[in-house]
Amino acid sequence: MDQAVNRQVLLDSRPDGVPQTAHFRIAHTPAPRPAPGQVLVRNQWLSVEPAMRGWVNAAANYSDPVAVGAVMRSFAVGTIAESDDPDWPVGTPVTGSFGWQDYAAVEPSAIQRRITETDLPLSLALGVLGINGVTAHFGLLEIGQPKPGETVVVSTAAGSVGSCVGQIAKLKGCDVIGIAGGEAKRRMCLERFGYDVALDYKAPDFAQQLAHACQGRVDVYFDNTSGPISDAVMGQLAVGARVVICGTAAIANWSPLPQGPRVERHLLVKRARMQGFVIFDHPQHGAIARADLAQWIHGGQLKYVEDVLEGIEQAPDAIAGLYRGENMGKRLIRLY
Amino acid sequence: MDQAVNRQVLLDSRPDGVPQTAHFRIAHTPAPRPAPGQVLVRNQWLSVEPAMRGWVNAAANYSDPVAVGAVMRSFAVGTIAESDDPDWPVGTPVTGSFGWQDYAAVEPSAIQRRITETDLPLSLALGVLGINGVTAHFGLLEIGQPKPGETVVVSTAAGSVGSCVGQIAKLKGCDVIGIAGGEAKRRMCLERFGYDVALDYKAPDFAQQLAHACQGRVDVYFDNTSGPISDAVMGQLAVGARVVICGTAAIANWSPLPQGPRVERHLLVKRARMQGFVIFDHPQHGAIARADLAQWIHGGQLKYVEDVLEGIEQAPDAIAGLYRGENMGKRLIRLY
Repeated sequence: MDQAVNRQVLLDSRPDGVPQTAHFRIAHTPAPRPAPGQVLVRNQWLSVEPAMRGWVNAAANYSDPVAVGAVMRSFAVGTIAESDDPDWPVGTPVTGSFGWQDYAAVEPSAIQRRITETDLPLSLALGVLGINGVTAHFGLLEIGQPKPGETVVVSTAAGSVGSCVGQIAKLKGCDVIGIAGGEAKRRMCLERFGYDVALDYKAPDFAQQLAHACQGRVDVYFDNTSGPISDAVMGQLAVGARVVICGTAAIANWSPLPQGPRVERHLLVKRARMQGFVIFDHPQHGAIARADLAQWIHGGQLKYVEDVLEGIEQAPDAIAGLYRGENMGKRLIRLY
Repeated sequence: MDQAVNRQVLLDSRPDGVPQTAHFRIAHTPAPRPAPGQVLVRNQWLSVEPAMRGWVNAAANYSDPVAVGAVMRSFAVGTIAESDDPDWPVGTPVTGSFGWQDYAAVEPSAIQRRITETDLPLSLALGVLGINGVTAHFGLLEIGQPKPGETVVVSTAAGSVGSCVGQIAKLKGCDVIGIAGGEAKRRMCLERFGYDVALDYKAPDFAQQLAHACQGRVDVYFDNTSGPISDAVMGQLAVGARVVICGTAAIANWSPLPQGPRVERHLLVKRARMQGFVIFDHPQHGAIARADLAQWIHGGQLKYVEDVLEGIEQAPDAIAGLYRGENMGKRLIRLY
C-alpha cells in the first residue's frame, strides 16, 4: 500500500450558490496510513448529491460547511483495504462519509454501515439503498403520510430521490403525478417508474397542464425544488394537504432570501402543512427503510437508474451538472 | 313582538380586501316570526372578527362568501325571545351564527350552544370562551404543541386570540414573546397578559429587537399576521420549530398572491413545520377548551380585554377598524 496514490478532490474556494469546476482542485498525495485503531477504506464509488451545494456554502445549513482546502465531503462505497480490527476484516464492503478521494483512514465508528445486500450492486448503497432511498422512504411515509387513493405530486420526479418517492407512493395505492425537466425524463417517469401522469416543467403551458392533472386534489406534495414548480403546486392543494420539503434545487442562492408567492393563505384555507426534514436526524430509519427497499428491488417493484461518471477527474463538474439537469438517475463517480 | 324592528347590517357590495363602511348598509325590517319548529333569538352582543374579511371576499376561503344583500355573517350572543320548544325556553342564553342583526329566527340546530357559564359575563361567549379562546387553545396546544421551557412567539399578541395564546403558553411553562402594534398594546402585553417580553412591530429597529429577544430559539410561532412580522420571526426559528398559521391580518389582499421571502429553506434547515388550521373543523374541541378556559378565568390566571362598540350603527366600520389596529382586546358590538 505504500506506493498507492490518493487522488483527492479538495474544495479550493467557497462558491456562492452552485459549486462549479473552478471551486475544486485535484491533489495527488500518498495514501494515508491508518493510525492505531483505524482502518483504511479504498473507495470504489463516490456519490454526487444536490445537497452538496449546501455543504460547501457558508449560509446556514444543517451541517458545518466543508472547509476550504479540505477533501470534499461525500458518501462513498468501498472495501476495507487495511485493518487490524477483527470486526472489520480486509475486503468488507462498507459505506460512509469517506469523501471524494481514493483512500480514507477512519475510525470504525465513522463507518456508516457494513453493506449486507451483497446480492445487489454495491453502488446501490449510495442511491436506492442509501441516503436517496432512505430519504424518499422516510419523507414520503413519515412526513407525507400518504393514504391509499390519495394524490401525490413529486418534483424532480425522475431523480434518485423523486423516482423512489413516486414508486413508493404507487406501492401505497396513491395516484402519482411526477414533474421532471424535459421529454426524456418525463418519458422515463412514465415508462420506467410507473407514474400515472408525468409533466415537463419546461413546457410553456406547464401550469395549465398541472392544474388539469391535479384538479385541486393534491394530498401530498413531495418537493425537491422550491421555486416556480412549487408555486404552481401550492395552488392545487387539497384540504388537509401535506407538503414535504426535502430539497430546494430550483433556488441557486438563499442569501439574501429570494422572493416568492406567500404560502400562508394556502396553508390556512387548506388546513395544510409544510414540513422540512433532514434524514441525518433519523438514523434509526435506515434499517427500516432498507428492509422495504431491498424487498421491493428484489420483487421488481422498485426500479432505479444510475448516471455513472467514469473517474475522479469528473468530480469537479459533477455537482454543477446536477443543477444543469444533465443527469438521468442517481449520479455516481466510479473510481475503479 | 309584532312591533319590534329588526336592524340588519347587510353586505351592500363585495370588497377587495378589507371591507369598509361603504360596503355595508343598515336596513330596518320587522322582526322575523319564527316558523314552526324555529325559535326567535334576540341578540345582545355581536362579534367583530378579523376573519370577517375572508367571509365577504370572493377569493378561496374556508366557507362560502356572504352573499351581497344578505345579513353579515357573525357570531352573536342573545336570549331566546320566542319559543314553543321545551328544550329552549324563553330567556335561555345562547350563542350561534345569528348575524349582525337584532333578531334571528333559527332552527334549534343552528344554535351553537346554550351558555352555561352564567356566572361570567355573557359576552365572554364571543371572546375568551368563544371562538377566540377556543381557537387559541386548539391552535397553541394541538398544532403548536409547546413544551415547558420552550420559547413561544405570538403575533397580534394583545388581541383576543393572541392574548389568550400568550397566557396559555405561560400557563404551560413557556417563555413567551409577544408582538403587538404600538406602545399601549405592548404595555398591555406586559402588564395585563404577563408576557416575558413584548415588542412593538412599529419600532424602527423591530427586527433587531426581535433577534435580540429570540436568539434563534423560537420553538413555536403562533401567527395571526403573515407579512413582515412573520418574515422576521422565520429567521429566528429553532430546530424542530412549529409555526401555527391562524390568520393573515397583515395581508390586505391575497389575489393575486403577494410576494414575500421564501420559507422553504428555513423549514428545511430547521426541520420545521408550518401548519394552518380552521377551528370550525374541530367542533369537539370547544367543550374541552372551555373547561380549561373557564377554570383559568375563575382562578385569575387568564385575563381578557373587551373593546365594546355601542350600537349597531358602529358595525359597518368595525372590521376596517380592526385592520387599522384601533381596538384594544376583543371587539364586540353591544345592542342593548
